[in-house]
Amino acid sequence: MDWRFSRMAGRMKSSVIRETLKITKKPGIISFGGGLPASELFPSEELIEASTKVLKENSSNALQYATTEGYPKLRKAIADVLADEGISASPDDILITGGSQQGLDLVGRIFIDEGETVVTAEPTYLGAIQAFNAFNPRYITLPSDDDGMTVDGLEELVEKNRPRFIYLVPTFQNPDGRTLPLSRRKKIVEIAKKYSVPIIEDDPYSYLFYEGTVPPPIKSIYPDGTILLGTFSKLLAPGLRIAWTVAPCEAYEKLVKQKQGADLHTNTFAQYVVYEYLAAGHLKQHIEDVKKLYSRRMKIMLECIERYFPEEVSWTKPTGGLFLWVVLPEKVNATELLPKAVENNVAYIPGSAFYPNGGGHNTIRMNFSKPTESEIEIGIKKLGEVFKEALKK
Amino acid sequence: MDWRFSRMAGRMKSSVIRETLKITKKPGIISFGGGLPASELFPSEELIEASTKVLKENSSNALQYATTEGYPKLRKAIADVLADEGISASPDDILITGGSQQGLDLVGRIFIDEGETVVTAEPTYLGAIQAFNAFNPRYITLPSDDDGMTVDGLEELVEKNRPRFIYLVPTFQNPDGRTLPLSRRKKIVEIAKKYSVPIIEDDPYSYLFYEGTVPPPIKSIYPDGTILLGTFSKLLAPGLRIAWTVAPCEAYEKLVKQKQGADLHTNTFAQYVVYEYLAAGHLKQHIEDVKKLYSRRMKIMLECIERYFPEEVSWTKPTGGLFLWVVLPEKVNATELLPKAVENNVAYIPGSAFYPNGGGHNTIRMNFSKPTESEIEIGIKKLGEVFKEALKK
Repeated sequence: MDWRFSRMAGRMKSSVIRETLKITKKPGIISFGGGLPASELFPSEELIEASTKVLKENSSNALQYATTEGYPKLRKAIADVLADEGISASPDDILITGGSQQGLDLVGRIFIDEGETVVTAEPTYLGAIQAFNAFNPRYITLPSDDDGMTVDGLEELVEKNRPRFIYLVPTFQNPDGRTLPLSRRKKIVEIAKKYSVPIIEDDPYSYLFYEGTVPPPIKSIYPDGTILLGTFSKLLAPGLRIAWTVAPCEAYEKLVKQKQGADLHTNTFAQYVVYEYLAAGHLKQHIEDVKKLYSRRMKIMLECIERYFPEEVSWTKPTGGLFLWVVLPEKVNATELLPKAVENNVAYIPGSAFYPNGGGHNTIRMNFSKPTESEIEIGIKKLGEVFKEALKK
Repeated sequence: MDWRFSRMAGRMKSSVIRETLKITKKPGIISFGGGLPASELFPSEELIEASTKVLKENSSNALQYATTEGYPKLRKAIADVLADEGISASPDDILITGGSQQGLDLVGRIFIDEGETVVTAEPTYLGAIQAFNAFNPRYITLPSDDDGMTVDGLEELVEKNRPRFIYLVPTFQNPDGRTLPLSRRKKIVEIAKKYSVPIIEDDPYSYLFYEGTVPPPIKSIYPDGTILLGTFSKLLAPGLRIAWTVAPCEAYEKLVKQKQGADLHTNTFAQYVVYEYLAAGHLKQHIEDVKKLYSRRMKIMLECIERYFPEEVSWTKPTGGLFLWVVLPEKVNATELLPKAVENNVAYIPGSAFYPNGGGHNTIRMNFSKPTESEIEIGIKKLGEVFKEALKK
C-alpha cells in the first residue's frame, strides 16, 4: 500500500508533552510534567447524582442526537456564570465544544489560510500551537516579561502583517503562569480595534486565583472582537470534555458550521450531566476546594524552589492557575537534561515546546496541581540537585 | 468589526438536513426526515448501572485527561466485536472518535488536499460530503442501482484521477438503504488494490439486518487498504458520541495526530460507561430489540408505500438499516414539494442533499427508525396524497 497523505497530515507532529509523558511514565516518578487537575477532588458522588437524574428523567433527550450549538439549558447556565465575570453573553453566543482544544481547532479552521499571520506571546500554550499548525499559519510572537506578553512594537507588527487574530491566554497563562494586567489588556485591545483584528481569549484558569483578584476579561473590554474560550476541564473534570466558545454573531455562525462537519455536536449526556451538576449548585463550593488545594501546592512549590534551586535559576511567581515557569542559565538545555532528571525520578516539560518559532531551550514548565505536597518537596529538591550538577559542567 | 475568515470557513454550508429539520419542527408533524434512533429503546437503566459503577470505582481515571487513542479496555472490547464480523483488528488499530462524524473529518484532514479527487456513490451520505467539503476535494461519483454503487468505468476513473480514497457506505447505505453485494465489493477492492487507493468503509448499520445476512465487510477483504468507521450511535445511543476508526498503522498514526490537535481525546467518562455496558453483556440483546422494532417499522412503511404511493413512484426495498429511498417522476421537485408536505403535517428530506455534485431533485430519503407504526401509516398515506396532487399538475 502506497499511502498518499495530505499536506495537513504531513504538518502535524505528535505533542511533545504527550511524547514526553510517555518517556516519564516510570513507576515512582514524581512528575511536574502534565497539566492534570488533582483527581482526588473530582466530585464523583455529585456526578453520580447528576447522571442518575439525567438518565432517569431525560434519557430520551440526553442520549439522542442534538443540535450542534449545545444543550440550551447548559448554555444558559454558562451565560449566568459569565455574567458574574462581567461578560454579558446571550446563550445564543455560546457554543459547546469538546474541550477548549476543539474550540482552538474551530478557530484555526475559520481564520487561518496557509501562510497568514497569527500573533501570540512567547511562550504560549502548546495546544493552541498544535491546533493552529494544522492550518499552517505564520507566527509572529512577542516576548513576555513578568506581566505576560509585551506590547512594544505590537502596533507596527499588526499594521504590517494584518494578522488573522491575536491569541492570548491572558490570565495565569499555560505555560508560565503570567497574567496580563488591565493596562496591557487595554493597550492590546486598542490596537486590535484599530486594525479590526479579533482576539482569541483562551481562559481556562481565571477562576483559579489564590491571591487578590484577576483583571477583567478581554471579552468584557472588546466584546465585539473577542472570541472567548472557557472550559470545565480545570473547574470540574477534563474527562467530561465540556467547554464553551463565546463568539460574536458572524464568527459564531462560522464556528457552528465547522463543528457540524467536525463532529455534529458534543456528547449530549455529558452536557446534561454538567448542567444538572451546576443546577444543583455544587460548582461554587467545588471551585473553593480546588483553589484551597492548588494554592497550598503552589505555595509549597515556590518555597521549595526558593530553598533548593541554585541561585542562577529564575522562575515566575503566579497567583493562580496550575503552572509556573523556570528559566535556567543559557548554557543548560532543558530537553537534554530531562533524561538525567528522569533517572533521578523527577520529570518536567521542556519549555521549548511552547515557542511557536523555536527557542526557549533553557526553560521548563512546572505543574503544581497534580503532585502532592510531599511529592513537591522531594521532587523539587531532586530537581535542584540535577540543576546544580548541570551547572557545574 | 471587519471579519476576515479563511477559505475553509467560506466553503462550509449548514447541513441541509439540520436546516430542513428546523422548518419541519411543527407540533404534530410526522417526520420521516431525521435519522434518529428510536429513543424509547435507549437502555437507561443499564446506563445508570454503568455510570454509577464507573464513578464509584474509577472516577479518578474516568474523569481525567486520557490518551488520544482512547480507553484501552474499550478498544479491546471493540476489537472483540469486530472479530465476530471476521475483521481481525488489534486494539492498537482502533481509535475512539467523537461519533463517526469525527472519523470522517479526520479522514478528510489526512487525505484531502484542495482539488484532489475523492470517489463516492451517488447518492451518498451527506455527513461525509459535509466533512470532506471543508477540504475542498473534487468528487467523482458513480450512479447507483439496486446493488448500490455501480462499478462500470470505475477502473478508468481511478487510473485517470488517482483519487485520494474511495468512500463507501457498503451496507444499508444512508440515504438509500442499498447494499453492495460481495461480488461488487471484490471488484472495487481489486481496482483499489491495483492503484493503491484506500477505501473508507463507513459502516454504522451492518449489525441492523432484518432478513438474511450481510456480505462480509470490505475491511475483511482489503485489510491493509481499508479504513473502517463504526459507531455505537445506532447500536446504543448517539448522544454518547462514541465511535471507532480502524486503520492500518501508517494511516492510524496520522489520524491520531490530527485528533490530538482537534480535541485531544474523546470524552473519557462516556468511554468508560460504554465499556461497562459492553462488559455487562447487554449489547447483544439490545441489538436484537432494536432490530425487532426497526424491522417492523420498515415492513409497515414498505406496505404503506405499496398501498398509498402513486404507481409512477419507485423506491428501494432494504433489508436493514434506517432508511429507504423514494424516486419520484422527473417532473417533481422534492425540495419544492416539501412545504406542501409540511402543510399536510408530514416531512421528509429531499434527496438532492446526498448528491455531492448536485442532482437528484426528484428523490427523497425516508427514515423508518424514529416514527411509530401509526405515524408511519398516517404519514405515508398523507404523503401519497401529496405526491398524487403533485403529479396531476
